[in-house]
Amino acid sequence: MRTYKAHIIDTPSPDAFRILENGYVSVSEEGRVVYIGSQCPVETGELVDLGDRLLIPAFCDLHLHAPQYRNNGLAMDLELLPWLNKYTFPEEMKFAHVDYARRIYSRFVHELWMQGTMRVSVFATVHPEATRLLADLLRKAGLGAYVGLVAMDRNAPDGLRNNALQAFSETTNLDRYLGREGLVRAIVTPRFIPSCSEEMLTALGRLANESGLPVQSHLSENMHEIDWVHQLEPDATCYGDAYHKYGLFGQTPTLMAHCCYTNPQETQLMRLNNVCIVHCPTSNTNLASGMAPIRHFLNNGIKVALGTDISGGHYMSMLRVIQYAIQTSKIHYAQSQGKMPFLSLAEAFYLATKSGGSFFGKVGCFDLGYDFDALVIDDAYLNFDHYTLPERLERFIYIGDDRDIRMRFCQGRLLPEPPL
Amino acid sequence: MRTYKAHIIDTPSPDAFRILENGYVSVSEEGRVVYIGSQCPVETGELVDLGDRLLIPAFCDLHLHAPQYRNNGLAMDLELLPWLNKYTFPEEMKFAHVDYARRIYSRFVHELWMQGTMRVSVFATVHPEATRLLADLLRKAGLGAYVGLVAMDRNAPDGLRNNALQAFSETTNLDRYLGREGLVRAIVTPRFIPSCSEEMLTALGRLANESGLPVQSHLSENMHEIDWVHQLEPDATCYGDAYHKYGLFGQTPTLMAHCCYTNPQETQLMRLNNVCIVHCPTSNTNLASGMAPIRHFLNNGIKVALGTDISGGHYMSMLRVIQYAIQTSKIHYAQSQGKMPFLSLAEAFYLATKSGGSFFGKVGCFDLGYDFDALVIDDAYLNFDHYTLPERLERFIYIGDDRDIRMRFCQGRLLPEPPL
Repeated sequence: MRTYKAHIIDTPSPDAFRILENGYVSVSEEGRVVYIGSQCPVETGELVDLGDRLLIPAFCDLHLHAPQYRNNGLAMDLELLPWLNKYTFPEEMKFAHVDYARRIYSRFVHELWMQGTMRVSVFATVHPEATRLLADLLRKAGLGAYVGLVAMDRNAPDGLRNNALQAFSETTNLDRYLGREGLVRAIVTPRFIPSCSEEMLTALGRLANESGLPVQSHLSENMHEIDWVHQLEPDATCYGDAYHKYGLFGQTPTLMAHCCYTNPQETQLMRLNNVCIVHCPTSNTNLASGMAPIRHFLNNGIKVALGTDISGGHYMSMLRVIQYAIQTSKIHYAQSQGKMPFLSLAEAFYLATKSGGSFFGKVGCFDLGYDFDALVIDDAYLNFDHYTLPERLERFIYIGDDRDIRMRFCQGRLLPEPPL
Repeated sequence: MRTYKAHIIDTPSPDAFRILENGYVSVSEEGRVVYIGSQCPVETGELVDLGDRLLIPAFCDLHLHAPQYRNNGLAMDLELLPWLNKYTFPEEMKFAHVDYARRIYSRFVHELWMQGTMRVSVFATVHPEATRLLADLLRKAGLGAYVGLVAMDRNAPDGLRNNALQAFSETTNLDRYLGREGLVRAIVTPRFIPSCSEEMLTALGRLANESGLPVQSHLSENMHEIDWVHQLEPDATCYGDAYHKYGLFGQTPTLMAHCCYTNPQETQLMRLNNVCIVHCPTSNTNLASGMAPIRHFLNNGIKVALGTDISGGHYMSMLRVIQYAIQTSKIHYAQSQGKMPFLSLAEAFYLATKSGGSFFGKVGCFDLGYDFDALVIDDAYLNFDHYTLPERLERFIYIGDDRDIRMRFCQGRLLPEPPL
């Protein structure tokens, strides 16, 4: 056991921060929180005094594309569908080459570590060897992840399609290779409806439901995309139903990224099936997709997590995503003449930690029994005046960056810097 | 004379970047560009080879509040008017104390330098001693600035009001102290209409028109503010007219920040009077003000510059403001079903350099005769693959930061780091 003393801040609920000035958190050998409080516990094990630093939950990024890392910060002059064809698919094709994949995925994993993101649900590509390599690199770094071999058998260029049998068997192989006990696991990953034939969706739905594997995909991101889905799947009552009828919409734990234009029917289907929306506000603004109405989804009892959506999103720090989640909710607030209250800082922080973390188990806050996923923040540079602890956290979120993160823990383990 | 060899990128026009791979720019003793081209000039003076680095124009921040530096990244749970009363006015009152002002303004100037912002038009407070100190610190650092002693005589707490005579004479004194030849000069600065009585506006209009000093203020930022102005100035045909009728709206060079809700009449008045809009998209989202329709203003021939609006805006880097300017224009694009084309990267860069720079003279690009305001960018960390020069610039703008800025020049002078 180890006990850390620091200014501890987390969000057990979205209503408000829990703030323990000079608090204590004890962590078991298994990496779980066994004590949290303002008093020093009777048994501390090794006591680590972090001094005037902040101790906060590490971040969870529930939607991003590792093979698009090279395109990070680039190519944002097009909307979704032409953007995929012009920039994204050509880049993803390079991952047929494992040496290329190793170079890019190493940098990707390094940046996750750097930005304090300890848990991700990530898209790889259709290439099984490169996808396994990504999973290996994440495991070696000590990070937690769901890794998806992307399934796509239509409307994609040669070299970037697999078929239903391949997607089924290669995802099964990845699942067997990784197992279900470790921090890195497999996830069923249809790219999106336009990329997947009926045969593909049938196979993936069968895989998810027989194996119990979770599912991740994209939903209602862009109006052109939605129109296309209606043409491709005329029998579906909404875009979400096109996943649902194949067993890919909440029959097992499911993440659906974006939902900028989810209609009432789709909202209802998500609520009934406990589908988690992954809100990616940087991506949605960069690709001119729109702004997902997050307050509306929260009011409807739908679970929401946050994602950077690299490289639709331009920056891998969840700090920026928290900022944009609040800011786009403020645009909704202004445009609704105040009828849609904007997200508070605590709410957005909760989405980036405990809400996203719940996809991985007990992750994202320092409640008893939770995995100790944590960041130690040294904000001496920002804290030049007599700021309160809530102010220090707010300034770190809005104007801090990776330079202020001094230590990163995932499931209790202090993670060293991974190789570049 | 000195000649710099580097990859030179600027925007002489908003249409596209000018890119000179391994280009040359020569700078006179007076700090002006006397040669730019792909070939080495016949006379170089001292030749400085910057290697594989990018050389770009430094940034111009046309609207920000130096005394709000301590509140940077804080206090964004309220809209404009309650935000002013609860957070901003109490902080500004502290600048009656010169020691406090010195401490905060030193950090403010340091951060301008750090972020590569070489020219600003800045609001101080009502306090003449602290305002002069800010101007002195900017001069010492070698930065270019218009510094405004804030004028406000109503709807503000005790200790944060001056009267018409004070504002007139103290701004006049600041102008005399600074002169009109150096890089730092005075600017007439009514806070906004709700803060200024008829007597105050009359005095400031007279000052601007008699002295030829430029003017800066706020305009049509928030609906509650606009309603209030209509109550306070029932005879004005629009908010802008409430400045115009006192000679504070283009009669001398004028900056008006925000314009989220400028109506057709006000747009017309700005165009006729050559008033420059300072677009502050980070501030407008943080304070839930809205989104200024920049494409619409550009289509109407109105000059637009960019501003961080610290501390309504949360971050002092113009890189972020460029990002948000593009991103909010993309939300307009999405919401107008594509009728309002979004800003290109070159356009937004132009707004942050040459367009804003024009307020200071020939500033903001490397055309002949322009002041050599420049940043040397070492993007080795970002440029890990074979990126093109346009891609390298785009990545620096979207995912780079102050760490990548290696040298900062203002009017030809390499600026050392100012003291914190």
